[in-house]
Amino acid sequence: MALNWPEATQRRLRAFAETRDWVRYHDPRSLLLALVGEVGELAELYQWQTDEPPDQARVQDEIADVLIYALRFAEVAGVDVAAAVAEKIDRNEQRFPALPLEEGQ
Amino acid sequence: MALNWPEATQRRLRAFAETRDWVRYHDPRSLLLALVGEVGELAELYQWQTDEPPDQARVQDEIADVLIYALRFAEVAGVDVAAAVAEKIDRNEQRFPALPLEEGQ
Amino acid sequence: MALNWPEATQRRLRAFAETRDWVRYHDPRSLLLALVGEVGELAELYQWQTDEPPDQARVQDEIADVLIYALRFAEVAGVDVAAAVAEKIDRNEQRFPALPLEEGQ
Amino acid sequence: MALNWPEATQRRLRAFAETRDWVRYHDPRSLLLALVGEVGELAELYQWQTDEPPDQARVQDEIADVLIYALRFAEVAGVDVAAAVAEKIDRNEQRFPALPLEEGQ
Repeated sequence: MALNWPEATQRRLRAFAETRDWVRYHDPRSLLLALVGEVGELAELYQWQTDEPPDQARVQDEIADVLIYALRFAEVAGVDVAAAVAEKIDRNEQRFPALPLEEGQ
Repeated sequence: MALNWPEATQRRLRAFAETRDWVRYHDPRSLLLALVGEVGELAELYQWQTDEPPDQARVQDEIADVLIYALRFAEVAGVDVAAAVAEKIDRNEQRFPALPLEEGQ
Repeated sequence: MALNWPEATQRRLRAFAETRDWVRYHDPRSLLLALVGEVGELAELYQWQTDEPPDQARVQDEIADVLIYALRFAEVAGVDVAAAVAEKIDRNEQRFPALPLEEGQ
Repeated sequence: MALNWPEATQRRLRAFAETRDWVRYHDPRSLLLALVGEVGELAELYQWQTDEPPDQARVQDEIADVLIYALRFAEVAGVDVAAAVAEKIDRNEQRFPALPLEEGQ
């Protein structure tokens, strides 16, 4: 069966860690602190309100790092990302009802 | 053309926001602060080292929230998540060479 | 010799932990994750831009928690807070020169 | 009346910002994102569990930055830091009773 994108990416990240003997560093708390570091780097790009937007290549780079550690964390924590996200959106749709469509729509 | 998982999830998140008139709140800095809040909730589950692991349903819930805000942020910031993650892993593979295979492998 | 405020507060926090047998949980990584949790709670108060400011009692409560974990972390990490902050401001004053006073000032 | 340490430090930070014309950048959300960036830098020092502790000068530097932005944020948000911290510890002392002293102590 085909892997979904989070699973396929996690497989690639796991192979990356295995072939560098880094799996032993990838416990949940360590990956969580790494995720915090990457969110911090993203925050640094947006911290001051200026007329110019942050450099797009750097934004792309930091959001990739955030996703990478979030996916690696999820695997080590035993969370099925695609299922978890779908279930959470389902629940939010129940919890926060959509606005009624206006007449004529 | 088929959407990849980040795109399909972002489409669902955008529709969710649109049907609740929440798109106006979804600027990059607001979504980034929301992401920080969710990373904080995940950190609270792991902050003390105890004999028991954190509740798996809560871990799943918080990692889903982290992914949801990271994906929504990426869309608003104009980042193609699947491409960004693939490029970053490519770059890391170049930057950190794999260990040599041991003899006999 | 009189303790400065960070030292006096750290002494109170240490006594608080000791009399509850919590010192064993206060390693740097655990306190850092707790700090991340509190910064996340502060971020949740500011994440959406609305017409009303966040509730002042909650802001005060969360900033207190941020300070408490930062001070407790600093003690466990062996950092003299008052000296560290003074040295950092000194350095920033050298690094970023002040604007010239305008004529007539 | 003498200023307490948080007030005296905040006065110095405010003068630093004023003499560089940076006060206009110091709204609560911007300072909060800056705080997130500094917490992220601290997390990067502790993210992997290794045999060696992180470099003490860097730890001192990052904890100073965390304190600086927390204090500056508190001032802009109108929070009296010394009072907020004292009240929060008072409340925690009520909320979490101390262990009974063992016999003979």
